[in-house]
Amino acid sequence: MTPENFIERIFINDKRAVARAISIIESGNSNSTEILKELHKKIGRAYRIGITGPPGAGKSTLTNQLTKYFRKQNKKVGVIAVDPTSPFTGGALLGDRVRMSEVGSDSGVFIRSMATRGSLGGLSKKTIDAADVLDAAGYDFIIFETVGVGQSELDVARAADTTIVVLVPESGDSIQAMKAGLMEIADFFVLNKSDRPGSESALVALKTILMLRDHTEKSWLPNIIKAVASENSGTKEIADEIERHHNYLEQNGLLKEKRESNYKVRIKEIVEHLLKNELWKEKRAESLEASLAKVVEGETSPYQIAETLFNDFKSTIQQ
Amino acid sequence: MTPENFIERIFINDKRAVARAISIIESGNSNSTEILKELHKKIGRAYRIGITGPPGAGKSTLTNQLTKYFRKQNKKVGVIAVDPTSPFTGGALLGDRVRMSEVGSDSGVFIRSMATRGSLGGLSKKTIDAADVLDAAGYDFIIFETVGVGQSELDVARAADTTIVVLVPESGDSIQAMKAGLMEIADFFVLNKSDRPGSESALVALKTILMLRDHTEKSWLPNIIKAVASENSGTKEIADEIERHHNYLEQNGLLKEKRESNYKVRIKEIVEHLLKNELWKEKRAESLEASLAKVVEGETSPYQIAETLFNDFKSTIQQ
Repeated sequence: MTPENFIERIFINDKRAVARAISIIESGNSNSTEILKELHKKIGRAYRIGITGPPGAGKSTLTNQLTKYFRKQNKKVGVIAVDPTSPFTGGALLGDRVRMSEVGSDSGVFIRSMATRGSLGGLSKKTIDAADVLDAAGYDFIIFETVGVGQSELDVARAADTTIVVLVPESGDSIQAMKAGLMEIADFFVLNKSDRPGSESALVALKTILMLRDHTEKSWLPNIIKAVASENSGTKEIADEIERHHNYLEQNGLLKEKRESNYKVRIKEIVEHLLKNELWKEKRAESLEASLAKVVEGETSPYQIAETLFNDFKSTIQQ
Repeated sequence: MTPENFIERIFINDKRAVARAISIIESGNSNSTEILKELHKKIGRAYRIGITGPPGAGKSTLTNQLTKYFRKQNKKVGVIAVDPTSPFTGGALLGDRVRMSEVGSDSGVFIRSMATRGSLGGLSKKTIDAADVLDAAGYDFIIFETVGVGQSELDVARAADTTIVVLVPESGDSIQAMKAGLMEIADFFVLNKSDRPGSESALVALKTILMLRDHTEKSWLPNIIKAVASENSGTKEIADEIERHHNYLEQNGLLKEKRESNYKVRIKEIVEHLLKNELWKEKRAESLEASLAKVVEGETSPYQIAETLFNDFKSTIQQ
């Protein structure tokens, strides 16, 4: 198929074209830039939801229930799972990745897992690029499911319009989430498995922590929604809260602001990526390699070598 | 104190000077480069141990026991904790960081926690720089304690000479560790809390997974050491295994190779850091800011803006 044809097929949600575009992005192939430029004009209609939280909190189950809920409203849903412990990436154990339901029977759902292993940086970039493909293909909701530990995962969650942090009543879980920086990114919390013992005290603890925060100048206060995702309890309440947050953002001009700020992070990442490609071209990579023994021997320091390479770069980059 | 004096005081393990040097590194202050260059000539004597694993595996307890064990052998031990859920960073909850024992009574132990929150990248760089300070100050062992999820944390663990992955018998834990990429970095495993039910079957599961790996061309096969860190059981066995791995690396010329490869990663990070500083100087940062509304409106794409910024950088960087 011609490139124009390929782009057109993405626009009409031809799943094979969509899957292929995401594979091209994932592989880091240079064609991906051209594809993303073409797709950009149809982007911005999807609403992006980040679902994050500690391993075992039930993020995948919740994602499933929300997907089914949105489907009943005739909305199309794309799911991107970035979670080394997610059932979606169940095949990761021995190096394979299983991609579930990618070309499933329901044309209104697209599920894709992105590998975290071996992706030396650039994971959040690729994930958000993949979301752009789904956005251009006309999905109404895009759900990022990410495990809430680690910078890349937080970056992905932060790139959503609404970010949901899922916790469970286990003791200390909410405290740990706070420490891991999940507090700051939550537009609301889901207390999942809330039929378990300790649920009420976990709720109290979480509310206390929320109250302790400095709320001055903030007009949106994160709610806590109770759920039992495995029994589909709380799903409607979560969907309603997403809508309420969406409306809040729209009515206060904050959606545009949030997306601008996300684009800023993203453009920076793209420029830095271009720069690194230029930086580590053969000659400089070889020169780095040749210096390592001297650094280990203590003859010169990493910082001295870095400066030499940096100066070499500056003197050779100009077009 | 004069700069020379400051460096000299680090060399004689003056804890206030050591703590101050690490604070300078953590703050990203430009003086840190000069300090690290000066320190480099006394670096390379410390043996670096990475201890990683899922939250709750008992990494901190193990680190404590190992520290006490090494102290009995009259070895000096520096600990750097990079773990949002570690008791060492217990104060992180509301934005404060508590640094335990930094200037404690035992002059042969130095414990420092590094913040993961808000460190937009560069965490592993700063952590390894901090280890260099401890190395130059004459600590015999440096222990990195990191939670085994997320790229930065893995980067830190990988920067050690010997990397230990701590697991517990809870069902599926070892499997999850495999998925999270911990398998590849383990020089050996510690099955902690091995007095718990399920310990034997966890051991079998782990051994099976290890056997399934492709061992061709590898002469070092990771062992599994059973421990109950809270009761100080297994500590000697762990220390012995560290020594066995150290000897293996030395005898096969692999320690030098490993350190060269670590320096390579590190020098790359330093150069990229220098470049980013240059890249996001005022003018280009403003130009990026001014373009965001157009990107949100769909008038132009992130990739187009990124290319413009990249070209501007190329045409202005030359000295």
